[in-house]
Amino acid sequence: MLKVGLLGAGRIAGVHATAITSHPGSSLVAVSDINTAAAQKIAAQYGAEVRDTDNILQDRTIDAVLIATSTDTHSDLIERATAAGKAVLCEKPVDLSLARARACQEAVASTGCPVMIGFNRRFDPNFSALKKAVHAGEIGKPELLSITSFDPAPPPVSYIKVSGGLFRDMMIHDFDMANFIMGTAPATVTAVGSSIVDPEIGGAGDVDTAVVTLSYADGRIAVIKNSRRAVYGYDQRVELLGSDGLLQAQNMLENTVVKSTTQGVTGAKPTYFFLERYMPAYAAEWAAFVEAVDGAKPLPVTLDDGVAALAMAEAATLSVRTGAPVSIASLIG
Amino acid sequence: MLKVGLLGAGRIAGVHATAITSHPGSSLVAVSDINTAAAQKIAAQYGAEVRDTDNILQDRTIDAVLIATSTDTHSDLIERATAAGKAVLCEKPVDLSLARARACQEAVASTGCPVMIGFNRRFDPNFSALKKAVHAGEIGKPELLSITSFDPAPPPVSYIKVSGGLFRDMMIHDFDMANFIMGTAPATVTAVGSSIVDPEIGGAGDVDTAVVTLSYADGRIAVIKNSRRAVYGYDQRVELLGSDGLLQAQNMLENTVVKSTTQGVTGAKPTYFFLERYMPAYAAEWAAFVEAVDGAKPLPVTLDDGVAALAMAEAATLSVRTGAPVSIASLIG
Amino acid sequence: MLKVGLLGAGRIAGVHATAITSHPGSSLVAVSDINTAAAQKIAAQYGAEVRDTDNILQDRTIDAVLIATSTDTHSDLIERATAAGKAVLCEKPVDLSLARARACQEAVASTGCPVMIGFNRRFDPNFSALKKAVHAGEIGKPELLSITSFDPAPPPVSYIKVSGGLFRDMMIHDFDMANFIMGTAPATVTAVGSSIVDPEIGGAGDVDTAVVTLSYADGRIAVIKNSRRAVYGYDQRVELLGSDGLLQAQNMLENTVVKSTTQGVTGAKPTYFFLERYMPAYAAEWAAFVEAVDGAKPLPVTLDDGVAALAMAEAATLSVRTGAPVSIASLIG
Amino acid sequence: MLKVGLLGAGRIAGVHATAITSHPGSSLVAVSDINTAAAQKIAAQYGAEVRDTDNILQDRTIDAVLIATSTDTHSDLIERATAAGKAVLCEKPVDLSLARARACQEAVASTGCPVMIGFNRRFDPNFSALKKAVHAGEIGKPELLSITSFDPAPPPVSYIKVSGGLFRDMMIHDFDMANFIMGTAPATVTAVGSSIVDPEIGGAGDVDTAVVTLSYADGRIAVIKNSRRAVYGYDQRVELLGSDGLLQAQNMLENTVVKSTTQGVTGAKPTYFFLERYMPAYAAEWAAFVEAVDGAKPLPVTLDDGVAALAMAEAATLSVRTGAPVSIASLIG
Repeated sequence: MLKVGLLGAGRIAGVHATAITSHPGSSLVAVSDINTAAAQKIAAQYGAEVRDTDNILQDRTIDAVLIATSTDTHSDLIERATAAGKAVLCEKPVDLSLARARACQEAVASTGCPVMIGFNRRFDPNFSALKKAVHAGEIGKPELLSITSFDPAPPPVSYIKVSGGLFRDMMIHDFDMANFIMGTAPATVTAVGSSIVDPEIGGAGDVDTAVVTLSYADGRIAVIKNSRRAVYGYDQRVELLGSDGLLQAQNMLENTVVKSTTQGVTGAKPTYFFLERYMPAYAAEWAAFVEAVDGAKPLPVTLDDGVAALAMAEAATLSVRTGAPVSIASLIG
Repeated sequence: MLKVGLLGAGRIAGVHATAITSHPGSSLVAVSDINTAAAQKIAAQYGAEVRDTDNILQDRTIDAVLIATSTDTHSDLIERATAAGKAVLCEKPVDLSLARARACQEAVASTGCPVMIGFNRRFDPNFSALKKAVHAGEIGKPELLSITSFDPAPPPVSYIKVSGGLFRDMMIHDFDMANFIMGTAPATVTAVGSSIVDPEIGGAGDVDTAVVTLSYADGRIAVIKNSRRAVYGYDQRVELLGSDGLLQAQNMLENTVVKSTTQGVTGAKPTYFFLERYMPAYAAEWAAFVEAVDGAKPLPVTLDDGVAALAMAEAATLSVRTGAPVSIASLIG
Repeated sequence: MLKVGLLGAGRIAGVHATAITSHPGSSLVAVSDINTAAAQKIAAQYGAEVRDTDNILQDRTIDAVLIATSTDTHSDLIERATAAGKAVLCEKPVDLSLARARACQEAVASTGCPVMIGFNRRFDPNFSALKKAVHAGEIGKPELLSITSFDPAPPPVSYIKVSGGLFRDMMIHDFDMANFIMGTAPATVTAVGSSIVDPEIGGAGDVDTAVVTLSYADGRIAVIKNSRRAVYGYDQRVELLGSDGLLQAQNMLENTVVKSTTQGVTGAKPTYFFLERYMPAYAAEWAAFVEAVDGAKPLPVTLDDGVAALAMAEAATLSVRTGAPVSIASLIG
Repeated sequence: MLKVGLLGAGRIAGVHATAITSHPGSSLVAVSDINTAAAQKIAAQYGAEVRDTDNILQDRTIDAVLIATSTDTHSDLIERATAAGKAVLCEKPVDLSLARARACQEAVASTGCPVMIGFNRRFDPNFSALKKAVHAGEIGKPELLSITSFDPAPPPVSYIKVSGGLFRDMMIHDFDMANFIMGTAPATVTAVGSSIVDPEIGGAGDVDTAVVTLSYADGRIAVIKNSRRAVYGYDQRVELLGSDGLLQAQNMLENTVVKSTTQGVTGAKPTYFFLERYMPAYAAEWAAFVEAVDGAKPLPVTLDDGVAALAMAEAATLSVRTGAPVSIASLIG
């Protein structure tokens, strides 16, 4: 039985608490948050204790911590937790600073502790089925990958300002998805973006609509489309053209009901946002973490994966400003 | 907090145990089963006690029982539990004998205890969305209902022999679905059936493929198709033609991945069977029971509904033998 | 080059005129109609002459006639045309009277002339692909066939009164489709019907909504659903469950555009009615007729097929009145 | 009645000949081709004469010419035909050289003759329905356009060498589609491409897989994906995200049959190539040309549109070599 401390008590922490307590091989021991009320609420609901972070990290009976705090604390907490010998599952992104994330990567390496980054979409049943089909050679050699990833509505501009921008906050999931499907990082990143959904986002120095093209050393190409607003719901699709066919992972819909009237044939919308769409993925992510900590399987997403995605986000941020392709090697050579 | 005793510890009892313990307003206190090992397994997993049925029914601190025993015990247990003042959620069907079920109905009436029959499909998010759309008048006046309901594979013939036959065991769900969607029982039932999937089923006196047509007093018509075998998975669809359009509840698929090759465009199969398809429905069913016992809402499925569906099953059994329509009034006047 | 006379100049005659003139192996020589203006219009458009029917039948240079007159003239014209040595393609149904159609069948037999009945749906690319897949054994042994066939709007009651009723006028297409897919006629026909779309249709002694179940000697079952009104367009679907899977021929849609908004995901309606849906089928039907007359292939739909469908319509008409199954053998022994 | 001369007698000329002769308002008078046998074949089939091009252009009774010759002759023939006072429908592209096309544009301007470029996809019922919905404001303000356009198989490398390359030969359709949907040309073009399908294509200096991003002055973005090989058929999809929703024009399928087996749920492939997919579009294109020449409506695609698409092809060709965005203004100021 894996004993777990949960750092952070916000909305996503609650999702992880459910996953931890529902898993037959793990139990939630303690929760910490600077917002004590939030920590108490989660602790009460799931039968855990409220403690401070130091206490959790020093408790030798706790095997693992799940880091669901704000992004600017991730690197520090990963370093402190691994220094204390804990296995770590940390929410994405590793850090807003690529340099800081790489320093963290080095610090962790010496501890030998497993650190997994929470790229939950790899565990979505649709994307993992697509990956499995690619791996099985069902469409031959991959050639052209397309990722469509639209949020239902933009976050407040106040969030935009601290988020690191669309590429670090939102498209980072898609960068990791590209790495997951293609099995390797791209050579160069070419980004085009604009602020057309909400001028205030542009005013804050960010884009809300972007197309990023990834070029691979072997000639493969990937393209990622992001928009902060798709009023019909969370639009999360992947398609991959290969030498022997095409694979598409389509949206999950709210239900299967279809209505035919004089106005057309109408089905349900895509599930609204990540909690609706990815709830099964969070449970599968946690199960994979437990399995890896138990040594049954290798870590399915590593800190290296987190750094790789962050480098792509930094490259895209540069490219959208200069208009020129940015090579990944120039950033993390 | 509703304290619950679980009668029966088979596979479906396990599903209910999950629903009971996951619900914030109910807790599982005790489990009984003639198979003690099975009862012990569930009790251990969900933190309940193994007791015998008498003990559970006599325990005044237990508010409700969930009956998930074999069909031939349902009427007796419903009567004993309501006599003991318990609220009851009983798996379908009420009984194999319509006469016995009607006697049970009378016995229960005097106790005033809520008795809900476990027609789980009413709580499937797709069928309940369809029902809601009908109720909202989205397709005008209902005229012609079609229910397709195929199992992935036939049960063993040994089960067929004690199941009461296809109409009482399998199509009873569809009879209830028709009543749920149409809002009233039909006037007559006309059934055609054959044993074409497995001759041994015919040898046991049952059919494995059937089409039943329901005629309503106001001219509406419903048709139910059943087969014991659809090799591609559990096929569970409902469609309703109305004066202003058509509503269809389509199958749930295993995932959303679609592959296009020289062989065609291939998507995932429907979810395999009722556990895969209806797991969310079991949780919603339990939540509705808790809500009704708490008095917040009326019982969504009553013992009367159970008797009505059973009468339709009896009518279909008669009709398939005689070839003639059977009026429901001739059975339950 | 097959020289063709067209008997009748109504709307469907125009469709056939296009098929005849577009086919490289046939030419339209003459048109007749009691409505001379209609005949002149078609003749002018397609470069043919207006003649009277006798003249066309006596013209030895005319090889074939297409009969697209009113139903009550079909049997007479088939007999006269074959007596004159013409090959015949006659619109369905052969006749409203089964006895008259059988007499026609006998009369034609002695002439040796090919007579094809215009069951155009057999030539729809979707239904013919389904048939081909069945024939290739792609779903194993057929077990349960379902045909959904809804018109977009009911015809005028004046038409209902002379049409022979829903079973002879509308469902006759579906009876033939069942024979086409199943490869044999059923043993018995059980019909349920009502007048729920338009009470005037009931007043005229007909039904507008019907479910007919066909039982085959070997245990297979088919069910046909008809409604005179599906406001969203022409609903023409076939599905067949077999021992190894399910085949479905779905509706053709007006276009492939899908719109996702806060209101849901909306696609185009089915094509509106038979002219929109079956235009390619009429061309394929004519091509098959030319091929058969040329001796390259056997007739794909025979007068026997027309009589078989008519017998099923008569059986359904009887069954809906009596409530009892009607055996086909009792009608055509 | 518009009298038409057809210049060229290859495969696409045959498609146009069908459209011209099927239209009630036009007739095909003459055909010319340096391959006399090909010209004779078309002339015989459609009742036209074989003549040489000079003769056709000098014949005052001929109102319009359809130019379906090899690309390197287009500009010359457009100039000669308009100098002779003919209305012109010319196959795309106008020319492989942007400079030559612009000279042609100037030469034509002084004649006042209508010149339409054959961007047939604008007349596809799916894309035109999408355009109509955009124009009607059904998804609000357009923001992000995606065009997927894959051929089923690469052409011979011998063709690649004279085609002007993927951008001028294949993606030019998609550039025009972007202009059609977005209503204006982009400001800059950023292209990424590689030769991954067939190394010989790379050897010939071309790419076979490409992603081109278009940036518009107002912040809108479009992305076009091309591949020379999609083994499952012609993949032609457009999707447009707007402030109020998403519009998608999906592929046409060979038929509507769906098969469910233990292997999954399989439907038909997309129609194989442009003749299968766009046959209705060619007829609609010709009808729109006739309507415009008659003065009933403005020309739906102009020579300016042809030049605009060609400029985008030239920009993409430059960008794929340099890696940098290319501004359209730098090419056609």
